[in-house]
This record gives sequence, C-alpha cells and structure tokens, in this order.
Amino acid sequence: MTLLHEPHHDGSPLYVDDETPATGWPVQVRVRTSTEDPVDQVWVRTTYDAEPTYHPCVEIARDEHTVWWQGDLPVHNPVTHYRFLLVTGDQQRWLTGAGVVDHDPPDAFDFRISSHAPAPDWARDAVVYQVFPDRFARSGAADARETPHWAVPAGWDDTVAFEPHDPRTPLQLFGGDLDGVTEHLDHVAGIGVTVVYTTPVFPGESNHRYNASTFDRVDDLLGGDEAYVRLVSAVHERGWRILGDLTTNHTGDTHEWFTNPDTHDYYCFRPDGTYECWMGHHTLPKLDHTNPTMRAAMLEGPDSVVARWLRPPFDLDGWRVDVANMTGRLGAIDVNHDVARAVRRTATAERADAFVIGEHNHDASTDLDGDGWHGTMNYSGFSWPVWSWLRDPGSPARAFGRPVPVSRRPGASVVRSLREWQGRYGWRATSSSWNILGSHDSARIRTLTGSGAVHRVAAGLQFTLPGVPMLFAGDEIGMEGVLGEDSRRPFPWHRRESWDEDTLATYAGLARVRHEHPALRRGGLRWAHVDDDVLVFLREHPAGSVLVAARRAAAPAVDLPLGDGTLLLTTGTDGDFTGTVPATDGPAFSVWSI
Amino acid sequence: MTLLHEPHHDGSPLYVDDETPATGWPVQVRVRTSTEDPVDQVWVRTTYDAEPTYHPCVEIARDEHTVWWQGDLPVHNPVTHYRFLLVTGDQQRWLTGAGVVDHDPPDAFDFRISSHAPAPDWARDAVVYQVFPDRFARSGAADARETPHWAVPAGWDDTVAFEPHDPRTPLQLFGGDLDGVTEHLDHVAGIGVTVVYTTPVFPGESNHRYNASTFDRVDDLLGGDEAYVRLVSAVHERGWRILGDLTTNHTGDTHEWFTNPDTHDYYCFRPDGTYECWMGHHTLPKLDHTNPTMRAAMLEGPDSVVARWLRPPFDLDGWRVDVANMTGRLGAIDVNHDVARAVRRTATAERADAFVIGEHNHDASTDLDGDGWHGTMNYSGFSWPVWSWLRDPGSPARAFGRPVPVSRRPGASVVRSLREWQGRYGWRATSSSWNILGSHDSARIRTLTGSGAVHRVAAGLQFTLPGVPMLFAGDEIGMEGVLGEDSRRPFPWHRRESWDEDTLATYAGLARVRHEHPALRRGGLRWAHVDDDVLVFLREHPAGSVLVAARRAAAPAVDLPLGDGTLLLTTGTDGDFTGTVPATDGPAFSVWSI
Repeated sequence: MTLLHEPHHDGSPLYVDDETPATGWPVQVRVRTSTEDPVDQVWVRTTYDAEPTYHPCVEIARDEHTVWWQGDLPVHNPVTHYRFLLVTGDQQRWLTGAGVVDHDPPDAFDFRISSHAPAPDWARDAVVYQVFPDRFARSGAADARETPHWAVPAGWDDTVAFEPHDPRTPLQLFGGDLDGVTEHLDHVAGIGVTVVYTTPVFPGESNHRYNASTFDRVDDLLGGDEAYVRLVSAVHERGWRILGDLTTNHTGDTHEWFTNPDTHDYYCFRPDGTYECWMGHHTLPKLDHTNPTMRAAMLEGPDSVVARWLRPPFDLDGWRVDVANMTGRLGAIDVNHDVARAVRRTATAERADAFVIGEHNHDASTDLDGDGWHGTMNYSGFSWPVWSWLRDPGSPARAFGRPVPVSRRPGASVVRSLREWQGRYGWRATSSSWNILGSHDSARIRTLTGSGAVHRVAAGLQFTLPGVPMLFAGDEIGMEGVLGEDSRRPFPWHRRESWDEDTLATYAGLARVRHEHPALRRGGLRWAHVDDDVLVFLREHPAGSVLVAARRAAAPAVDLPLGDGTLLLTTGTDGDFTGTVPATDGPAFSVWSI
Repeated sequence: MTLLHEPHHDGSPLYVDDETPATGWPVQVRVRTSTEDPVDQVWVRTTYDAEPTYHPCVEIARDEHTVWWQGDLPVHNPVTHYRFLLVTGDQQRWLTGAGVVDHDPPDAFDFRISSHAPAPDWARDAVVYQVFPDRFARSGAADARETPHWAVPAGWDDTVAFEPHDPRTPLQLFGGDLDGVTEHLDHVAGIGVTVVYTTPVFPGESNHRYNASTFDRVDDLLGGDEAYVRLVSAVHERGWRILGDLTTNHTGDTHEWFTNPDTHDYYCFRPDGTYECWMGHHTLPKLDHTNPTMRAAMLEGPDSVVARWLRPPFDLDGWRVDVANMTGRLGAIDVNHDVARAVRRTATAERADAFVIGEHNHDASTDLDGDGWHGTMNYSGFSWPVWSWLRDPGSPARAFGRPVPVSRRPGASVVRSLREWQGRYGWRATSSSWNILGSHDSARIRTLTGSGAVHRVAAGLQFTLPGVPMLFAGDEIGMEGVLGEDSRRPFPWHRRESWDEDTLATYAGLARVRHEHPALRRGGLRWAHVDDDVLVFLREHPAGSVLVAARRAAAPAVDLPLGDGTLLLTTGTDGDFTGTVPATDGPAFSVWSI
C-alpha cells in the first residue's frame, strides 16, 4: 500500500520554521499535498486559550507531483496544539499528528509545538549505551572486594537467576564495576556511541541498586566515588556525555532517610504505621513529594541530589529518572508534573545543557513537550510496535508488563501505532525520546526476533525512525534473555567467539550513517509504502534526505517514483536505488541517500 | 455494516457495578463478546499511579450468541483509566472507549470511571429548554419600558440583523422579558421539558447580555429581580429546575468592577494600560482568575456571585458557564481547572444537587469527569457529528466557528466521531452533557437539515443518544436561522399557522419516550448497524432496552436478529419490530422497546 500521496506535515524543518517559537509570534507551518490527491484549500486550526481558531494556508510552490502550502500559526500558549483542515470540493479531511482522517476527531492527536526549551543537541544527536554495572565488566580491583552480607556471590560465567520468585534474582552479585566500564570504552567507541548511561551507582542492597541506601556516594562495590570520577572523565575526554540514573519515586528501606526517624516524613506513612511503597514491595518505600523538605533534599536547588551530581567532581550531564511515571502520584495526589518541572529546572540551573529523561513504559503524553522531562524511554511508541512487527512466533521472550506474549502484527497495524504515538507525544518529544529495542527490564531483542537477520532489521529501525537510539549493552553482539533479569547476563568479553560480528558491524554502520546524515537525526518522517512484511519511509531534511526500507521477511520489489539513490547501508543484498526497493529473499534493511 | 458482533463495554449499569466507586475498592466491570467473534481471554488493564497493571476477567455467562466476562477493576486514583485486552489465539485486540482496535494505541480513548460525585439525577434525566430572553416572549409590562440609550428598538415581527458587521446585531432590542417566559410555561410543559435555562439576565448593554454591567441584579428591561423570582417560582412549582448563565471569563466594559479603579486588578491589564479581552473585543475585558479577590467576588465562598444566586429569593439550581473553555487561561497561565473546581465546590456547598455545565465548542476532555464541570454543551461530540450526517447540501446554514460549510459525511464516519468523542469524554461525562442540535450561537437545525422530515431525525438522535437533550426555544416548531444571531428570531406566538405541528408533536413524543424508558437516560449504547444513510443502535438497561433506527434518506430494510419489539415512536411508517428495521422511502426515525 503506497502512502506517498498522503497530505503530510510534521515538526521537522521542512514543515515548521521554528521548532521552539516564542509565544506571541506566529510560526510558519507548511503542508505538502500530492497532485494525485488534489486539495483546494488548507486551513490550520489551533486553539487560543482553548478556543479553536482557523488560519488560512496558501499555495507557495507546485510541481508536477507536489503542492506546498504555508500558513501562519499563532503561538499564544506555551504548548500550542494544531491540525490542518483539507478541503476538496465538498469533502473535508483533517491532517493530524496521527495522519489524515475523514471524520471529525477529538484533539488527542493534534500536532503540537512547544515554546519550552528543547532537549540539548547532544542528547538529540546521541547514540546512547546503557550499562548495568554489575554485569558489564570487572576491573582488576574487583577480585579484592568482599562480598557484602546481603549478596549471593556469582562467577562471571554463572547462570543468572531470573525467575521472579527466585530469591537469588536481586542478590546475585557478579562484581562488575565502574573501572570495568572505563576499561571497555574502546569497544563502546567502536559502536559509535556518544552517551553512556549507567543504571544506579548509589549503594543499595541489591545487584540493581534501585533500592538506594544513600544518594551521597558511589557504592564501594563499584569502586566508589573515585572510580566514578575516572569513568566520567574518560567519557568526557572522548567528547561524549554521561547520564546517571536516579529513582525519585522511592528509596530502599535501608536508605538513611528511611532509617532515620527525623526524616520519616520524607515517606508516605499511613496512620497505622505502615507505608506506601513501589508496587507493593516493602523494601521500596515511596517518597512523599508533597513534603517540601524532602523535595529540597532530592530535587530542588543547588544542594539537592539532582544538582550535586551534575557538578565536579562527578559532573554528570543529566539524569535518567526511574519510575518517572509514578513519581509524585499516589491515589488522589498528583504532583508528578511539578516534580518533573523541578528536576528539569534544577538540572538546567546547574548545567544549561543538562538532559532529563523519564522512564515511562506507558503513555507519557501529558508529561512531555512542556517544561518537564525532555523525553521518555519510548517503550510504548517505539519498542512495542517494533516488537510486535518483528517477534518470532516461537520465541520464548516474555512480554514486559503484559500477562500474554507479544502479538505479531502486520505492517499496517504497526505503522498505525507508530503514528498515533508520534502524534500523541508530539514531534519534538518523540525525536528527543529513546528508541529502545530492550533494556535491563525487558527481554533481549535477539531473543524476541529469534535471528540475527531480523535483529538487524530491528536495529535499523532503531537508528532511522525519529528518536534517539539507546542500546542495552550486549545488544550489539546478539546477547540473549527472555525477560529483564535474564537479559542482565554478564558481557562475554572473554568469549569473543560467541559475539555476533555481523550484528556488531551493523550497529557500527547504523551509527555512522546516523551521525553523517542530519536527515536521520532531524529530518521529517514520511511513510512511503507499507505491507505486512515491508515498511518503507523517507526521512527528509533540507540538508539531504534518505530512504529507508525494512523487510521482516522475503518480499517482492516495491516501485517508488522517487528518483535515484545511493546505497548507504544494507543488511541484505540491495544495491543503489533506481526507483525500486528491490525484492529480497529474507529479512533485510537498507538505507539510501536520495 | 453490522456492528452487533463487536465486543462491547461502556459505563452503563450492565457493564459497571458502580459508576462512582470509592477509591481503594475494586469495581466489577463486564464485557460482552459474541460467539460469532470468539475471544479466549479478556484482561482489564488500568493504570495505578500511571503504571499499567492487568487484571483477569472470567466468563460469567454464556448463551448461543453472547459471552459475558467480568473482572475486578482496582480504583486507586479518583479518575481511573482502563481498557480491555482481548486475546484470541495469537491475536490481541484492545477494546477502548472508541471501539475495538487491532493495534496498540495510546491511552487517549481509554475508558474512565470517576470517584468524584456525578451530576445530580435531575440534570441527567432532564429535557432542557434554552430561552434567549429578548426574543422569547414579551409580557404585558414590556410596552411600558423605555428603550435604553444603547439600543435599537425593534418590533416583534421585524427582521433580525445578523451579519457580523451589521452594527445593529447586538443592539436590536425586541423587548422579550422574564414574565413573558413565565406566561408561556404551558407551552414549555407541552414539550416535556423539565429544566429551563435562560441566557444571561444581568444588565448589559446588548440584547444578549453576555457583557454584564453587574452581577448583582436582574436587568430591569427583563422585569428586574421580581420578575426573575416569579419565573423561578413558577418553574419550581411545576417540579422543574432552572439554570442561570454566568460568564466567568469576562464582563462588559460597563461592568461596575471595570469602571471602578479600585477593582481594576480584577482584569488583565497590560503594562501599557491596554487590557486582555475576549477574542479581541475591547468591550469584553477578561477577568484575572489569578487574583484571589476577584475569585472571591466571582466564585469562591458564600458571598460570591456563583453562590448568591443559588439562594432565595432567586434559588437557581445551577449554572451554565459561558466561555468555560477560556476561563482562567491566558497564554502561559492556565488555572482553568481550578476555576471549574471552585465553581462546582461553591455551587454544591450552596445546594447539594447543584449542576454546573461548561460551554466548550471544542475538546473539553481534560475538564470533565473530575471535580470540575459536570458536563459540557456537547457541540464537538454530538452537534457536529449529527450536523455532518444530516446537513442538506444546499442549506444556507453556516458552520459555527469554521471557515467552510459543514461537510456532509456518511454514517460510518459520523459514528466514528461519535464513538471517539464518547471515548474521550468518558461515559458519565457524555451522559451528563447536553446534546444540542443548535443554540443561540449556531444555525438552526431546521435550516441546516432543510426539511421537517430530516429535522425530526435529528431530534430523534438528540433524545436517544447518550446525553441530555437541550432544545433552543423555537427548534420545536421548526424555526430557522443561518447562523447564531439569525437563529434569535422572535418566537411567533401570534402566528401559530407558521408552526411545524408535526415537529412539535415529535419533540413531545420523544420527551415522553425518554421519560418513560430508563434505557434512554441511563442505558448503554451499542451500535447495531451503520450504513451511509442508516444508523441503528441499542440503548440497553436492566429495566428494559430500546432499539433506535435513524434513516436520513430512503433506505432498504436491515435484518437484525434481536427478537421482536414494540413500536414506541416513529416519524415514518414503521410498525412493530419483527427482526427487521423496515425499508423506508424517505427520512425516518423510530424507537422500539425490545
């Protein structure tokens, strides 16, 4: 099914003059329509203090195939919603962030533009690498460390305990540390990474450390503060950035705030002396974000946890915020957006180009594009659609957060999801969010797809759809895992023969193409062709455009009247583009400059 | 196209045990599926402080055609969102408030249930009659009144000036008054009305009085306070209710607050001495809802305008709030929900069963179903879909707020709009909102539809789709108007021969059927059949169900295996239902009990 003739708009430079316009001034917005699907009038509709207003667009350019329309969109509110009314004779359609519809829909998928500052360029242009410190690499110093009382010691080649009810799951300690990460930055560089993100480094009585005992220092089991400073410095010396991982929703029950009666009111104690906690886990007491003293300690002002770690000697470049969706929400209480706004305000006061990204495995739409999180870990808008297109029906991979396996869906259904989520989050927030194929909380993409060839198609989408690719360390060599805990297997540095070198080379190639082509970082997204097994789209930018074709299985050729293109990368056997996406006899992913 | 086999859920008693559950306790929710479209598993997914959680549903009943599923939905947050995951073999679909989809959508159309108090029963079971006092009826006292300095006097049979740039449009004074309304309550009773809503009665230098000069008294041109008391008393004596109309967004520039320098800070003055106003009209200065003194005067506490008029001697039963969408919104400022919450809190403190409904000709979804407005004037979710199905292509009726005429759309497109809006607003808020075919701000439905027969189909939908019918006085006799101001023609009491008696009888019949059948006030909505020209749906309730068939044009018969039904009302020639919606040779609307 060709989508090339669909009327189109998105938030990229070809369609919006200024992605962060000041309020009080209009911004020019453009729509392209096809001469195959004629349109007589285009109006941009926005809401002015929630009142709909219409503003005309005029034809500004036309050739044999395409008509360009332009109009002035008033920017009155900091987050401005808009959509286009397309009139053809007696027919009226709407162009929304989720595509064109021929009924009158609610505003859920209106385009949006924000006057709030965007994510910093380094974060939007990044390739992010997620490290789970206990499982990435052991430095020479690791052997000398004593196993703490709570831990079950494990050797690097031991099997990871991962079943939810296995008591060893959070306790098995493999002994990876921060100097181990520092020692392997050449490997990370080889993939084309520019941002390192580690899961928590604060002490906590578990291997994942999401149950912090303090936010004041780095776990000695990881090498302590000095090892962290060495890692940050090494990352910065390469011109990269590094992000910390902070849980603002809860701490461990071993936390110095929780064990100190003076700061009991930092938590949500009930009248009967019990307390609120994360998803019923009593070891994870929930913080009370209506308490200004706790808020000051955690995230308001220069003495807060959020601020201190962004300064020397640690000098982090920002935070990934754990459980960002639940933070500050408890029954009738919802100060979540205040928390997000405060974290961002504190972080950017400390470093103007700080980046804050919230974890949300759900619908973060009301939390993005404003003055809160710059983006989200885009499980819903990227991971699940891609998973549902590429899952091997026989895969043992388990769904994340669902009681049933991931459904295998055809291309059109997957594209509808991608478009609706992009529409719901807005262009800029989508582009600043993380495209993840998995994380320490999910199955590995390799296990889900069941083959290197399909895994490489997934990686291709990760680097070419709008958003910032974030790899969970080990994805690049085809590591496996059926669910989050199983995906935390130690990195097999000493078994290079187990690495999938084709996949590693694909990731490196994808990162290179992404770094070299602004279209893949800042270009628009226009769908060109969708079939059950084929997704073809354009990323278009004034500096040059690229064509992307993903095939999950053998597929026939697809003719597309887009001129000629030069092959930039293929995981299959495609050559240059000459008006046809070639047939393939198996999974394949290709990128052409056109 | 039959929709009878679609899996279904809505917020009505057949599907939800308690429409206003307390937080902290689960509520039982049910889904019906058809044996024609088998489902293996049903899960209800909700969000717990924004974290998705899944809860199983089990089969509780089954017959040859239908399977009923039930599950416990945890109610943790005051407004709880949920949807159902339907599993059939490897396939997964979602049942959302907008229907069933086979992709993974954002949460925009999730079902929702609210722990906040619902609208009062009298408001939900009402038939509402909107009176524009200057044009409804002149009492004997009207002749004696002097024309004020600002007005252009008009005789009852004069032509209404209605073009936007005609200076007479807001100034023509026809002299209708409140005793005129009181004198005609028998007519109102004949239609089956139970709630009278008048547009503003405060003095203001215009015929519409939306530019109030004070909120302390009733305009003498309408008969003053005494006439209002007489009207309210007469309404209450009939066991009915009455609503006022309050503009919380702005006042007139003649208002005592605006002309008094001591209360200049009630308004949004700019540094240069100019001020914010409604849509650029300098006579309508915008109130500053961040000013607590103004908030107290207008809407907080027992001395506020909102409270005072709900007490004797006036004793109003609630308010329709004008420009509710823009109230408290100005650029970066948005205290709209605070205002809505305060109006409701103040009103219900005064009268426990007060009703507050907000005007919103747009997407009110974020303002409803919580602790703010009980409902909205449902232009977007009712009027525009119905208009787009029933408009006469040759009608001179103008669109309301759009730069192009209303588009005529086929049934499927209209149903998609109705479903999406219902999903977006939630069941309870939809059911408590006003189904309007027009108002003093829009063209008349008769002019839009171009015929009595189609007008009666529109009226049928108004009384049978979820929501509360609100008639703009004169609709019931087929009055005409091409846009809002033109629709304010004086009521032709003295030209009874001009009345459309068929249509009047239809409205009375519809009100009677609605009052007699709980299914039409509280029943669920299940779509049965949709074609371009045919909409058939069921309103189902434990106390008995009804089948509704609307045909906008000649249409063939539609077989529906629903047993037999007794005709309650038809505007065509239909008899009892015997498994077939009969063919019709023109527009027709019928209701059967089944």
